[in-house]
Amino acid sequence: MEIVFLGTGAGMPSKQRNTSSLVLNLSAEEGGYWLFDCGEATQHQLLHTTIKPRKINKIFITHLHGDHIFGLPGFLGSRSFLGGDEPLTIYGPKGIEEWIITSLKLSKTHLTYTLHFVELKEGFLFEDEHFKVETKELQHVISCFGFRIEQKPLKGKLLIEKAIEAGVPKGPLLQKLKDGHDIVLDNGKTVYSKDVTGEPQTGFTVAILGDTRFCEAAVELSKEADVVIHEATFDLETGDLAKEYGHSTIGDAANVAKKAGAHSLIANHISARFLPYHIAHLEQSGREIFQNLHIAEDFSHFEWKDDKLIKK
Amino acid sequence: MEIVFLGTGAGMPSKQRNTSSLVLNLSAEEGGYWLFDCGEATQHQLLHTTIKPRKINKIFITHLHGDHIFGLPGFLGSRSFLGGDEPLTIYGPKGIEEWIITSLKLSKTHLTYTLHFVELKEGFLFEDEHFKVETKELQHVISCFGFRIEQKPLKGKLLIEKAIEAGVPKGPLLQKLKDGHDIVLDNGKTVYSKDVTGEPQTGFTVAILGDTRFCEAAVELSKEADVVIHEATFDLETGDLAKEYGHSTIGDAANVAKKAGAHSLIANHISARFLPYHIAHLEQSGREIFQNLHIAEDFSHFEWKDDKLIKK
Ligand SMILES: [Zn+2]
Ligand SMILES: [Zn+2]
Repeated sequence: MEIVFLGTGAGMPSKQRNTSSLVLNLSAEEGGYWLFDCGEATQHQLLHTTIKPRKINKIFITHLHGDHIFGLPGFLGSRSFLGGDEPLTIYGPKGIEEWIITSLKLSKTHLTYTLHFVELKEGFLFEDEHFKVETKELQHVISCFGFRIEQKPLKGKLLIEKAIEAGVPKGPLLQKLKDGHDIVLDNGKTVYSKDVTGEPQTGFTVAILGDTRFCEAAVELSKEADVVIHEATFDLETGDLAKEYGHSTIGDAANVAKKAGAHSLIANHISARFLPYHIAHLEQSGREIFQNLHIAEDFSHFEWKDDKLIKK
Repeated sequence: MEIVFLGTGAGMPSKQRNTSSLVLNLSAEEGGYWLFDCGEATQHQLLHTTIKPRKINKIFITHLHGDHIFGLPGFLGSRSFLGGDEPLTIYGPKGIEEWIITSLKLSKTHLTYTLHFVELKEGFLFEDEHFKVETKELQHVISCFGFRIEQKPLKGKLLIEKAIEAGVPKGPLLQKLKDGHDIVLDNGKTVYSKDVTGEPQTGFTVAILGDTRFCEAAVELSKEADVVIHEATFDLETGDLAKEYGHSTIGDAANVAKKAGAHSLIANHISARFLPYHIAHLEQSGREIFQNLHIAEDFSHFEWKDDKLIKK
């Protein structure tokens, strides 16, 4: 699992940070590439990565503010123009479907792929073979959602030596055992999958939250998560502004991760008032509350590997 | 008069060229800053210039394709956020008003300034003290317009020595004469404005055309213009494609300028298939038809001064 930040700014683009967007790369886990929010010029940011628009198979929109959605019509058109023909699903708040349909129609943008829309409601959003995704409403000035993505437990590895010892011949029977099925050998003996496979491994959990004040829903979505991605529009000194505008300080973000017992935290949605040389201070003030904290830059690239978050 | 190209690509952004937008800087002529088209990330491009969004007082939209309009909602919001409080007028095809209003409403973008819309129809678009703007429909796959901007003749300069010779005292009477009024001196003698001012000077004419095939309307809008800005999505070798998609080759653009008896031509809307090293060839093939031709890059900056087009 990898996370690539495309836009880590707040409200407006600046020379340092674009408006909100990130890619959750679940291709190694058979989930594909999921885009979270799509501020203006998200497709431009993708040009500087190896991620092709056609690879993105799901888009999650936290809320309808322009800095989170104004890149959608252009992205959708370019995905088509660049050869995307696999279906794409957009999970977003009420209103996004109507706006996208209107925008595509007005601009005579014809898509070469099927576009599905799923309107966000609190609770389980979907579940497939590999993942379970849950959403909750956060506390912003307009309706805004956070997502909890849980990878399902992974089947134990096939212990090949044990299987051969039990008399299983090389070939398709091994795959059956690996997939959890018990088998009967030619000699009538039953070999149980659990006897020749290792322990199931727990999957990872990522919480990706939209714009919000400090709130319990953010803590719940982040409960014991391996990685929490939380906004931090303000610093500790401007906490009053944060509350007023429905945003968080770096301290709020750190407290969410701490209270949730999370493993690691990446803060994004950083106000343009913080210039590059302020960032170390911001990071330090958050780490006094929650140690394993990073502040994302545009094109920051993280990997979750061997139960650790690695900055690439 | 200056022209700053913000996006000179066709259809989609590339690393070299953004989608369509340019600024006509008429601030020295008391017209302000006029934006022509507003592809996605136009506001991002402005960050790399000295032009502030709040300075832009008119926006002209040639047609509704995404590469010409998808930057509008973000630009309008940021203009507000960055302190723009002067009214802004958008001249565009039917549909643009509804889309902008819907986009601002959905995203809860509140503007601090008044937004006016004027729906494009062939003919004179507006006329003020300094300029006359005319529009005609071109030939694209959807309704698409071009604009002819004429600066009105400038009053002749005050010939100060002649005025003093005629007995005019220093002070406000000189300004009156300069403004075209005749005056009566204390001694009863009349001084005529025409006797103490030079010849009126002709203003400049710029034609800014949207996406189009070679067409007569483009020639008419460009008639004896000082500067013509014409798309050139294709090269001479791909003329069939150009016609099919409602676009022009560099040859079509050059022929419009030639047939119109224009002074100079700047080609934009260059396909991403032409890499930087192709551009010299493209330019050369156009110049064989019309000599005074330039191909615009993003951030190309031209000035019209002393009856000449200067590349800055
Ligand atoms: Zn935001
Ligand atoms: Zn175009």
